[in-house]
Amino acid sequence: LRALVTGAGGFVGSALVDRLRSEGRYETLVLVDVAPPGAQGDDLLSVVGDFGDPAVRDRALQQPVDVVFHLAGVMGGAAEADYDLSRRINLDATLDLVEAASSRGRRPRVVYTSTVAVFGAPLPPAVDDATPLSPAMTYGAHKLMMEIALADLHRRGSIEAVTVRLPGILARPAGGQGMKSAFMSEVFHALVEGRSYVVPVSPDATLWAMSLDRCVSNLVHAATVNPARLPPGRAVTLPAVRPRFGDMVQVAAGALGVDPEKVRYVPDPVLEAQFGALPPLEAQAAIDAGFADDGDVVGLVSAVLGRLGRPA
Amino acid sequence: LRALVTGAGGFVGSALVDRLRSEGRYETLVLVDVAPPGAQGDDLLSVVGDFGDPAVRDRALQQPVDVVFHLAGVMGGAAEADYDLSRRINLDATLDLVEAASSRGRRPRVVYTSTVAVFGAPLPPAVDDATPLSPAMTYGAHKLMMEIALADLHRRGSIEAVTVRLPGILARPAGGQGMKSAFMSEVFHALVEGRSYVVPVSPDATLWAMSLDRCVSNLVHAATVNPARLPPGRAVTLPAVRPRFGDMVQVAAGALGVDPEKVRYVPDPVLEAQFGALPPLEAQAAIDAGFADDGDVVGLVSAVLGRLGRPA
Repeated sequence: LRALVTGAGGFVGSALVDRLRSEGRYETLVLVDVAPPGAQGDDLLSVVGDFGDPAVRDRALQQPVDVVFHLAGVMGGAAEADYDLSRRINLDATLDLVEAASSRGRRPRVVYTSTVAVFGAPLPPAVDDATPLSPAMTYGAHKLMMEIALADLHRRGSIEAVTVRLPGILARPAGGQGMKSAFMSEVFHALVEGRSYVVPVSPDATLWAMSLDRCVSNLVHAATVNPARLPPGRAVTLPAVRPRFGDMVQVAAGALGVDPEKVRYVPDPVLEAQFGALPPLEAQAAIDAGFADDGDVVGLVSAVLGRLGRPA
Repeated sequence: LRALVTGAGGFVGSALVDRLRSEGRYETLVLVDVAPPGAQGDDLLSVVGDFGDPAVRDRALQQPVDVVFHLAGVMGGAAEADYDLSRRINLDATLDLVEAASSRGRRPRVVYTSTVAVFGAPLPPAVDDATPLSPAMTYGAHKLMMEIALADLHRRGSIEAVTVRLPGILARPAGGQGMKSAFMSEVFHALVEGRSYVVPVSPDATLWAMSLDRCVSNLVHAATVNPARLPPGRAVTLPAVRPRFGDMVQVAAGALGVDPEKVRYVPDPVLEAQFGALPPLEAQAAIDAGFADDGDVVGLVSAVLGRLGRPA
């Protein structure tokens, strides 16, 4: 079996590649990323470049692939700031990639990472599988358009589409990339290093969060789940732990033996509304299909700290 | 004011152009169609060609336009048969056209004709504004993707988007174009000419139907309605009369003085399921925004026969 991973050098992509290699399910992993991969091996075929470039797609798909893990794309803030770029990458090139993968004689499975941003803002008092989709950002709009395109290509028999809508994945690498939600990850790095940190939301802020390891497990599951377990739209909102921010900090500080008072809360009303007011989420369709969250705040924090190299 | 009409020579387009000219709201109408327009006049600027051709779009948009009526596209059966064509025209070129219209210094209103095919099949026992959208054909999928793109461009301030989802429009020109739903129109042509006709659905079949004149009135309204009256998704399902097929034939035959027994019913189960089982439709958002249907089966038949040149 051969799998293609776009964004293979990224935060989620590199962890996914590690897991796929350790599980040994694929003889060859084709890694597409704008930067050369850190990993090397006979089982890896690296294609360095932007998947928006047709030549890069051609190189990546010289041999038919059985699975495409499509992680690359223009993220939320960047897509909002540059509509043309988001259209070119998140829409046109993504559809081109999927069509090219489906034209090579197999019916590849496409694992597509969508986003809870398809729900838009403000969110209703509770979110479940019947909540209307009404994106409020270009990023979410283009992701939702691709969900629909993939469901149609699945119906036509061109691909097997499995779309998973990701919540916030923790903890991203320190330093952030100017992401406004970086504080959710930075607080973990600060606690691990025993530094004090100012969080721009209140202790009562609620998140939808998933550890990187759990995210990778869900992506691996997406590549093997019986397609009949997915709803007709081929998309599921992944379940997520919904911690109170203050509780998450308490648990992490306790596990690390750090004074939780090192974290102070200076809420920014805009960030609190955007990232700290996530309502209860009932992700039954995903649970029915075998996807899972980290269980509870303790499980979440344990998985996050485990990955950061400290005992939880 | 300047308006652009794509598909200006088509069934709906030519009737819309006639109405717009008679109302005199626009100084210039730019008519885009693959065939030269029948109408001529100082108020008309004809661009003959496929709007999927960038040169055609450039010619059509040499001057900024205030309103775009986008009617052209690849219809349902053709889109299903040729995915690549539907992607190129119904998705890529449509988005290119809207972006080009919005880049000329104004914030044009875009009146986009979508379809009830966005609801998919089979339909639930009743359809309203909360019914989930789950297209079951490539045509509906690409229309829904464009609805989302237009809502996003509206939110960004690039355009004023008004999307109307059309039901079946009656009566299309005789002869059909191989459309499987052609019988809905053909039965009117047969009755007007006193011919007998075999309908491939039962008398109990239920349709969602709108006269061409009412459709044009709704498109004209879409160009002037206060944008604040539309829901955030910028799309409304137009209200439609839901006649029993047998009643529609009875009313038409009575108005024409023709024996209704000239119409026989030989139901095809596939066509009955696809075109003859439309559930009750509650289109409240459209009604709240001032859109209307033909009232009842008598109003529908009267408007259809009026357009065919016979007293109703």
